[in-house]
Amino acid sequence: MDALTLHEDPRSGNCYKIRLTAALLGKRVKRVQYDIMKGDTRRPEFLQSVNATGRIPVLQIGDRFLPESNAACWYLAESSALMPTDAFQRADMLRWMFFEQYSHEPNIATLRFWLMFVGESNLSRFQKDQIMAKRAGGEAALAVMDEHLAERDWFVGKGATLADIALYPYTHVCEAGGFRLHDYPAVCRWLKRVSGLPGYVPMD
Amino acid sequence: MDALTLHEDPRSGNCYKIRLTAALLGKRVKRVQYDIMKGDTRRPEFLQSVNATGRIPVLQIGDRFLPESNAACWYLAESSALMPTDAFQRADMLRWMFFEQYSHEPNIATLRFWLMFVGESNLSRFQKDQIMAKRAGGEAALAVMDEHLAERDWFVGKGATLADIALYPYTHVCEAGGFRLHDYPAVCRWLKRVSGLPGYVPMD
Repeated sequence: MDALTLHEDPRSGNCYKIRLTAALLGKRVKRVQYDIMKGDTRRPEFLQSVNATGRIPVLQIGDRFLPESNAACWYLAESSALMPTDAFQRADMLRWMFFEQYSHEPNIATLRFWLMFVGESNLSRFQKDQIMAKRAGGEAALAVMDEHLAERDWFVGKGATLADIALYPYTHVCEAGGFRLHDYPAVCRWLKRVSGLPGYVPMD
Repeated sequence: MDALTLHEDPRSGNCYKIRLTAALLGKRVKRVQYDIMKGDTRRPEFLQSVNATGRIPVLQIGDRFLPESNAACWYLAESSALMPTDAFQRADMLRWMFFEQYSHEPNIATLRFWLMFVGESNLSRFQKDQIMAKRAGGEAALAVMDEHLAERDWFVGKGATLADIALYPYTHVCEAGGFRLHDYPAVCRWLKRVSGLPGYVPMD
């Protein structure tokens, strides 16, 4: 089997997703860390050898490179217990993974990054103007999750899948972006279920 | 086999993706059309029976509903010739599908919607303030595609996959959002390859 290497910034929830998937599956992944705040992933050596877009995470599989966090989770988990065996459920799992990248991460992760790492006083006027819309978009995403989980333990089927792994990282730290988890009681119960999974590792 | 019904607005590239996937695979999909400009997908009957988020497309499979365009394409194409048989290539195909939803569609499709359907003079100040950033983001996505395609015929492997189907719809009409296709010659050659696929259907 090809060696697995995760090119990551440990503060990124997108990077944590991959590490959590690997841990739940008992797969060893070597970690190479970069500081995105210092521009580590914009240097020529990263752009030339890891990812020309300057973005992390990237999962390296032997000498091949796979960007996009949810694609990397898929690669690690294919044919594992984290992947439903039913065709509709597999597609429904991807449905929640696309929801995460389209409706959840751009709002919830971005506000955490802006407020916790950049600092509100350092934001540009353009960024400040977007806070209200991202707050509303993030609250809408959390409400969709809470409604879906009100009568279910997991996003798809009867056990944890990549849908749960993809949505967990930025949800469980969403208060750093100013969201109030206690407004979403079904989400809170689900977060505890995920953190109780055998092999679970916390975010750094 | 369960009957397939696509809940769509035919002007949406996300809806067209699903129709194109079905056409290339020779699958029959019944179409139910909504006018998002008239709020058809915000009415109680749609919210209660099709998708509580009010978004389209939704692929209905028998009595089950699957939102998110790329998840619907996956459902239609699993185990078909549009899906690579190699595990890395399957994940790499998903990488481009997540790239499409995160870095391409929110910029390129949104500018087309704003400029072609809403009209620049009807945009809010908040929307107008975002045009420059979405222009830059869209141009960056097209540049990533052009560089990737400079020495390849298809996004993944040696033939068309869902990566191509996901990226085609909003790319081939990007000029409606003010992008200049002739700046991306490898993308232009690839667009012709996609439209030459057996079974190809145009966007309405």
